[in-house]
Amino acid sequence: MNTTTNFQLNPYAVQLCTLSRWISAKQWAPAGSGNFSIRSNEHGCLITRAHKDKGELSPHDLVQISWNRGEAEFTAKAADSALLHVALYQQFPTAKVVLQTQSVAANVWSRLIKADNFLFSGYELQSVITGQPAQQQSCSLAIIDANQPMPLQAAEISRRASELSSGLLIRGHGLYVWGESLEHSKRQLEAWEFLISCELERMKVSGLL
Amino acid sequence: MNTTTNFQLNPYAVQLCTLSRWISAKQWAPAGSGNFSIRSNEHGCLITRAHKDKGELSPHDLVQISWNRGEAEFTAKAADSALLHVALYQQFPTAKVVLQTQSVAANVWSRLIKADNFLFSGYELQSVITGQPAQQQSCSLAIIDANQPMPLQAAEISRRASELSSGLLIRGHGLYVWGESLEHSKRQLEAWEFLISCELERMKVSGLL
Amino acid sequence: MNTTTNFQLNPYAVQLCTLSRWISAKQWAPAGSGNFSIRSNEHGCLITRAHKDKGELSPHDLVQISWNRGEAEFTAKAADSALLHVALYQQFPTAKVVLQTQSVAANVWSRLIKADNFLFSGYELQSVITGQPAQQQSCSLAIIDANQPMPLQAAEISRRASELSSGLLIRGHGLYVWGESLEHSKRQLEAWEFLISCELERMKVSGLL
Amino acid sequence: MNTTTNFQLNPYAVQLCTLSRWISAKQWAPAGSGNFSIRSNEHGCLITRAHKDKGELSPHDLVQISWNRGEAEFTAKAADSALLHVALYQQFPTAKVVLQTQSVAANVWSRLIKADNFLFSGYELQSVITGQPAQQQSCSLAIIDANQPMPLQAAEISRRASELSSGLLIRGHGLYVWGESLEHSKRQLEAWEFLISCELERMKVSGLL
Repeated sequence: MNTTTNFQLNPYAVQLCTLSRWISAKQWAPAGSGNFSIRSNEHGCLITRAHKDKGELSPHDLVQISWNRGEAEFTAKAADSALLHVALYQQFPTAKVVLQTQSVAANVWSRLIKADNFLFSGYELQSVITGQPAQQQSCSLAIIDANQPMPLQAAEISRRASELSSGLLIRGHGLYVWGESLEHSKRQLEAWEFLISCELERMKVSGLL
Repeated sequence: MNTTTNFQLNPYAVQLCTLSRWISAKQWAPAGSGNFSIRSNEHGCLITRAHKDKGELSPHDLVQISWNRGEAEFTAKAADSALLHVALYQQFPTAKVVLQTQSVAANVWSRLIKADNFLFSGYELQSVITGQPAQQQSCSLAIIDANQPMPLQAAEISRRASELSSGLLIRGHGLYVWGESLEHSKRQLEAWEFLISCELERMKVSGLL
Repeated sequence: MNTTTNFQLNPYAVQLCTLSRWISAKQWAPAGSGNFSIRSNEHGCLITRAHKDKGELSPHDLVQISWNRGEAEFTAKAADSALLHVALYQQFPTAKVVLQTQSVAANVWSRLIKADNFLFSGYELQSVITGQPAQQQSCSLAIIDANQPMPLQAAEISRRASELSSGLLIRGHGLYVWGESLEHSKRQLEAWEFLISCELERMKVSGLL
Repeated sequence: MNTTTNFQLNPYAVQLCTLSRWISAKQWAPAGSGNFSIRSNEHGCLITRAHKDKGELSPHDLVQISWNRGEAEFTAKAADSALLHVALYQQFPTAKVVLQTQSVAANVWSRLIKADNFLFSGYELQSVITGQPAQQQSCSLAIIDANQPMPLQAAEISRRASELSSGLLIRGHGLYVWGESLEHSKRQLEAWEFLISCELERMKVSGLL
């Protein structure tokens, strides 16, 4: 995996930065957390530099990483989680954007749910989530444990790929969503955050189940 | 029901877009959800195109739909929920605007309430709600189940019209409000969202009842 | 009580409108609720016109009301709650500004507390509240029942004046704060809202007591 | 401890004011609460004037204070809490900025936790907190009781310095964070507020433990 800063390679870099500031204003990427990437080609993407304040992102804060088929190496200058971004791009050839966020609701809720996935049902917003079997009444979100090295998390993504629609949750480590465009990914992010917030609010009244 | 994009027919189209961005900033229409319409004439309205980001609405994103007395057909280009907007315009001749939103609070609360309506009492904000019997101490909000086809939901609106003041809740599918102007409808929306938020907050301390 | 629209009488009218928009952005005066006034002289004040959207207040939306010693009559064009504003100006000669707000937290909390006052203790923010006995460890907020005609509420303010510092709560009808300037009143409003929010949050974990 | 207003001594005064407005917009320093300081030299700092609205801070609202080795006197014009800022600068020679905030979440949570420190574990955001022993799985936040005179609180900071990383909580009196730059301190503040909010939200579902 090589790293360069040829951010000019991607015409959508500026739009990604605009989306980053929108996400930051929602408090979904506090304290330099969160990482956003955009695919440049079949084996490469631009990704946010580690720990950069997401409310102040500019194209200069994006670094280019690339990977060879089947192998991905971590680069110090990129974010720690670049490995999972790469795993998602490798798994989902149509994914053009990966957004990794850290909201309070997603963190808290991911730890309250002990199972390795959750079925949302009864919310109209489920219809926004792409990659779900047609006509399905419920919408599934996979949850992966964080207490394993990142390469094992990446392997779990590959192993459970058939379960994944447009998002997954790393327990206590935030939400990953992906999509075919910036607009599509933003919509997936909003929908997953909405569904998670609804369930967390419901629990405050009804308890854990 | 015919669909055209003669958005220029309605001088309030720009104001509706301004209100849309205000609603989006409140997070009451996330992920392209929510739909807003404004009556153009006795048998027609302008309505938001399906799935459009409500924080970026412009008059070009509004489509014209029309209906004949007693029948309304769904048009692919309009939002799925256009049928319910039409049902409300048909039922309430003085309604000029329909706002359909998706807040976390309204979604969660609509599912916690099992009855088909709820009586708010003791809140000064109830006085803002129009269409309530004068001197009434409580203020009623009808709740309709979403697990029935949309034409049946529309029929339920007709059947229960006498119960409806300026809003109704589709369980898990958001809130509909209507009014005689953009300003009036906005005020109804804020009042219903306030009342619902109060009851949800109360439940977090006092439990379901 | 006479009403005119000589808003130019008060040089602070524009600043009151700026504060109104700030309060509206905090969602403390939704749906045209809330009313703000500023004293013009010993027997008069400017007050917001009834039901005006507080996010769009301009000096033209302020009406002048005046009162004679010992009597105050309600004027249709002014807000319903003008009577309580007048009662506060009569009771507290140093009060220059009255801010009446409707937050979700204050509404919900005022109904959870059954007593007619509440003692806050242990919060540093209590030190911001003016009018408390020096060296007192706790800070008292009076709560008045809304299920009595407004003149009786005004009479209760007079009767309980010695208990009042810079704020009082009408159960289910919002918070009134007053102060010697716009800046002072804004600080009182923020402090009371903070203290009320803290107690409501505490109750969500610890229960009613 | 001498006080002057030579704010021009510090080139970062303007940036501190920008950060102050950002903190105010987050509602982390309401009603003139909160105090922010920036070190000018080994024995001095600029600190916010007492009770100033943090949403309207300008360099003129900063006062210079200085201290001699081992002793610090309180100056009336500076904020009451200047003594604790000084204690932190004396204890941590690399600290360049101290941010003292008052969020609802930190106030409520500090009073729910009865122990004198709290161990966060399982959150990725812990990795943002500096000054923690490397490879440690948990992240500790010290909590100091407010019901003791400020010089005793300062003494407790000295005595417990080895426990402190980049933040401490005064029970019911808000959060102090410090760092080697404005950017670093802002990141610490966001991370601590995030962790505290997560635990408070968790408690609303799971109870006190």
